[in-house]
Amino acid sequence: MQATSRRCRWASIPGPNMREAASMYGTAVAVFLVILVAALQGSVPPESPFPYHIPLDPEGTLELSWNVSYVQEDVHFQLLVRGLKAGVLFGMSDRGELENADLVVLWTDGGRSYFADAWSDQKGRIHLDNQQDYQLLQAQGTPDGLVLLFKRPFATCDPKDYLIEDGTVHLVYGILEEPFQSLEAINISSLHTGLQRVQLLKPEVPTPAVPADTRTMEIRAPDVLIPSEETTYWCYITELPQGFPRHHIVMYEPIVTEGNEALVHHMEVFQCAATFESFPHFSGPCDSKMKPQRLSYCRHVLAAWALGAKAFYYPEEAGLAFGGPGSSRYLRLEVHYHNPLKIPGRRDSSGIRLYYTATLRRFDAGIMELGLVYTPVMAIPPKETAFVLTGYCTDKCTQLALPSSGVHIFASQLHTHLTGRKVVTVLARDGRETEIVNRDNHYSPHFQEIRMLKKVVSVHQGDVLITSCTYNTEDRKLATVGGFGILEEMCVNYVHYYPQTQLELCKSAVDPGFLQKYFHLVNRFNSEDVCTCPQATVPQQFASVPWNSFSRDVLRALYAFAPISMHCNRSSAVRFQGEWDLQPLPEIVSPLEEPTPHCPTRGAQSPAGPTVVNIGRGRA
Amino acid sequence: MQATSRRCRWASIPGPNMREAASMYGTAVAVFLVILVAALQGSVPPESPFPYHIPLDPEGTLELSWNVSYVQEDVHFQLLVRGLKAGVLFGMSDRGELENADLVVLWTDGGRSYFADAWSDQKGRIHLDNQQDYQLLQAQGTPDGLVLLFKRPFATCDPKDYLIEDGTVHLVYGILEEPFQSLEAINISSLHTGLQRVQLLKPEVPTPAVPADTRTMEIRAPDVLIPSEETTYWCYITELPQGFPRHHIVMYEPIVTEGNEALVHHMEVFQCAATFESFPHFSGPCDSKMKPQRLSYCRHVLAAWALGAKAFYYPEEAGLAFGGPGSSRYLRLEVHYHNPLKIPGRRDSSGIRLYYTATLRRFDAGIMELGLVYTPVMAIPPKETAFVLTGYCTDKCTQLALPSSGVHIFASQLHTHLTGRKVVTVLARDGRETEIVNRDNHYSPHFQEIRMLKKVVSVHQGDVLITSCTYNTEDRKLATVGGFGILEEMCVNYVHYYPQTQLELCKSAVDPGFLQKYFHLVNRFNSEDVCTCPQATVPQQFASVPWNSFSRDVLRALYAFAPISMHCNRSSAVRFQGEWDLQPLPEIVSPLEEPTPHCPTRGAQSPAGPTVVNIGRGRA
Repeated sequence: MQATSRRCRWASIPGPNMREAASMYGTAVAVFLVILVAALQGSVPPESPFPYHIPLDPEGTLELSWNVSYVQEDVHFQLLVRGLKAGVLFGMSDRGELENADLVVLWTDGGRSYFADAWSDQKGRIHLDNQQDYQLLQAQGTPDGLVLLFKRPFATCDPKDYLIEDGTVHLVYGILEEPFQSLEAINISSLHTGLQRVQLLKPEVPTPAVPADTRTMEIRAPDVLIPSEETTYWCYITELPQGFPRHHIVMYEPIVTEGNEALVHHMEVFQCAATFESFPHFSGPCDSKMKPQRLSYCRHVLAAWALGAKAFYYPEEAGLAFGGPGSSRYLRLEVHYHNPLKIPGRRDSSGIRLYYTATLRRFDAGIMELGLVYTPVMAIPPKETAFVLTGYCTDKCTQLALPSSGVHIFASQLHTHLTGRKVVTVLARDGRETEIVNRDNHYSPHFQEIRMLKKVVSVHQGDVLITSCTYNTEDRKLATVGGFGILEEMCVNYVHYYPQTQLELCKSAVDPGFLQKYFHLVNRFNSEDVCTCPQATVPQQFASVPWNSFSRDVLRALYAFAPISMHCNRSSAVRFQGEWDLQPLPEIVSPLEEPTPHCPTRGAQSPAGPTVVNIGRGRA
Repeated sequence: MQATSRRCRWASIPGPNMREAASMYGTAVAVFLVILVAALQGSVPPESPFPYHIPLDPEGTLELSWNVSYVQEDVHFQLLVRGLKAGVLFGMSDRGELENADLVVLWTDGGRSYFADAWSDQKGRIHLDNQQDYQLLQAQGTPDGLVLLFKRPFATCDPKDYLIEDGTVHLVYGILEEPFQSLEAINISSLHTGLQRVQLLKPEVPTPAVPADTRTMEIRAPDVLIPSEETTYWCYITELPQGFPRHHIVMYEPIVTEGNEALVHHMEVFQCAATFESFPHFSGPCDSKMKPQRLSYCRHVLAAWALGAKAFYYPEEAGLAFGGPGSSRYLRLEVHYHNPLKIPGRRDSSGIRLYYTATLRRFDAGIMELGLVYTPVMAIPPKETAFVLTGYCTDKCTQLALPSSGVHIFASQLHTHLTGRKVVTVLARDGRETEIVNRDNHYSPHFQEIRMLKKVVSVHQGDVLITSCTYNTEDRKLATVGGFGILEEMCVNYVHYYPQTQLELCKSAVDPGFLQKYFHLVNRFNSEDVCTCPQATVPQQFASVPWNSFSRDVLRALYAFAPISMHCNRSSAVRFQGEWDLQPLPEIVSPLEEPTPHCPTRGAQSPAGPTVVNIGRGRA
């Protein structure tokens, strides 16, 4: 065990909060601190700095940087705390709640300060963790604020700990404004707390080289005045130059107006449909009544970015075609402003910078939709906490529509509406699940990034792709049916792949005839009646199902058994030739095994309790 | 950290195996050993000796003693190895298989010897455990053999480890006859291995005082010649003296003929039915064709013992009545001889010693049957790995049949036929599950002990008792229906309680009308036909169900939803007055939460790898 100590100054940023705090406790906040870092154990701050950054709170008080070691299976965190008051709380939880969270806490009892691995129970009470898996490596005062450096393994095998997985991680934070006698005394509900979503385990994909003739184009918001409302989706129509020829987008990156880093939540660039000659110009909230109807035809994704994401690179052998004949010149930029503090008067010109080349790469990249058809026959009963719907891309469709050399999926964007909680796509071959294409066990419909896959997934003729979405309808009173409406549901994985093929959509839904058998049998088991007459629509039928354990379980059983109707479509909704109705569900004889988490061997390096971070109190 | 070393002699029992081993390796087996005990850490051998003992193998080569600390939440094991060869392997697994087992291994590479916590994968390959949770405390040569003393926490939170729970634990062992270069080199399939079932976590119930006028009576096998067959159930009829008045059994204990400790698997004493004046005498295998028919009326349990169990005490305020008017004088002793090595010529007079008093205690103890009615309407589809059936004792029945002061359950015997894998009974009050009456997550139909409860469970009027059994029918081709036959199934918890009431049976089964609706809907969804005509019996109907995911899931849904028929019966099958058909399933609004296992804090005491047990090689 190694112990180092160092003396340094608290950052003293004389902001109003600090003055408040100073007067509150009668002592100064610019204090001297002596850091006792308990266990450095071969973990000097890693040589590469922290490639990933994200502001945690809208004021930018807390800033997180991190890096990932897939070899060590751990994450190094660097947390910058501006204007530290009495402490800070940081951690992760299933969906961003402060209850049942896995936490690190830096707190002071007025004299000493402590750093500890802790957890909160379902009532939000904080407890010291038996196993100290967050390991403090350094605490340092800098001109910007206090910098805490700590690391944690992906998996700790402590049942109180969060398992860091691929996909979305809900980070939580809290600001301690006053000393607490103990961890247990901290009252979460009295703190300023919040959450931030991020993909913590970024893939370690080597950055492909960008061709020498690469040019850039910026699709940016036109100096928008950010509305002082919590949520705004801003729509802006722009266009490519007249006669802009066919190019390949090889990369793109976000441009975020300085100072607005915590407000710009996500941005997407869509290409409009080639069916229309022209599109009206527009700049305003996407839900504005002034928004021209036609803009709903601008849905073909060219680029998508969300908070915490970095530049997106196409594989060296592929690019996304845009421009040239047969494609629309019109582009729609959508910016999601998240302004929970309703800060007024902020102007913004954020957007996306496209890097493109005229030297077309070997392959066009394509986007394929996997999952469920947008139809009400796929429905989720109300009051379900984790109802799963599954969409299939069958062997018959991949056999017919994919080239014999297969296609290669390199990125994926998962999509559901409001009740989606998890999404996963699995590849199966000869009845055996072999590989996960993309999985997000903490999926949020408010955080739909395009994500590079850690490993390119090759799909061959005859392969099956199974996309499952888990929904939570606890707050709904009626069944949630599939459809386009925001209160209806979707289950989609937009996979980015090359070489582009004719297959644009490979999705399924339960056979409608079998659904009618379901309504019949529900009637047989219940006194209330579901109308199985021809004039009733499926949403009406679902609305009249009496939701008891039997009707729920049997709907689940139906979806797991009944034949499906396949949509194996070219662009513009033309099906490939063949029989696509009443198809058997793909049979899986060997599901993918869940890997057992690899528990780190714990040795002398783990402290048994809190690490003392002796913060002496200084002068004003 | 403390380290002790000691020198002692290997026990040298010059059995044939040892001579073999000696010649095999050309070196002697009587070796000197230097023990390096790595981590004694406050764990000197506990002061109380080991109250529990069990032979592991039929030859008695391995003998396990243990004690349990509910405060420390750990078990101390003392393993006696007679005639040690090259090592020994001991551990636990779900159902006694050597694959996926949690192991400790003592092995030698020919030079040094090692002790380590290990695990076997699903192919039976052995791996060193990342976390060393079995902690060696002492290794000592004694005249009887090598004695290994080690301990393990109930829960380790290592996903490779077995969780030691209440109920049956399947202990596994293996004998290493030759050195192995490493743990990984050990080939389990080449070892002499086996399993032994035991209740490891014995309840810590204070032994009640036995009255001064206690007398004893021995019900013993009449010097039986144990058949040289793997399994024999021996039946022996004996009788109480003429005019034997009413007494209370206050305790009983096993009498096992010396030398037969590993052969006598379990014993039960049954009282015959009072309906018959007399019963014919008999001594022979229970499945003998010579066995008088009438003996099947000798089913009322007076006492039951199984391997590893100790004396059974009734609570001080209660006793089990026997003798006197209205009860039969005839008793049936059943002894299960387990003789896998088919040792011939062994004679046995094992049995049970009843301790009884003429001074009747305040309360008669009673036995009540909970669970499922023996009826084919409760069925398990074939090829299921974990199908659950549940039987209810409803609030309506306990309201009617229990005294207002309630009853107190102090012991329980779980019962299923061959496919039973888990059994649990939960108590619910006002829709909330409050307490587990008895649970066995590793239940085996071959190990049906009466178990004292750790804590007496009081059942009041209006309480609900829910008994669930989990079955494995992987090896069956047709549905397994409920019934008396050995190939049919049961789900029963015989609870021992006081004061005795009229309620002898509180069990349920699905309403038969709803089961017919199930067969109807299976027909609607499938091409094959289940006859729903009146002449078809339920077993015939189940035999013709096409077992696909839908018919399985919907049967599960039916049992979780359909109303039940209650058997709320006095003795001799007389129902309490009331409407017992088409009863609603008890509604559970708050199920019992699974406790998170309490992971021990690991500190410096846990070695990171194998402990060296330096075994020097000596002379012949």
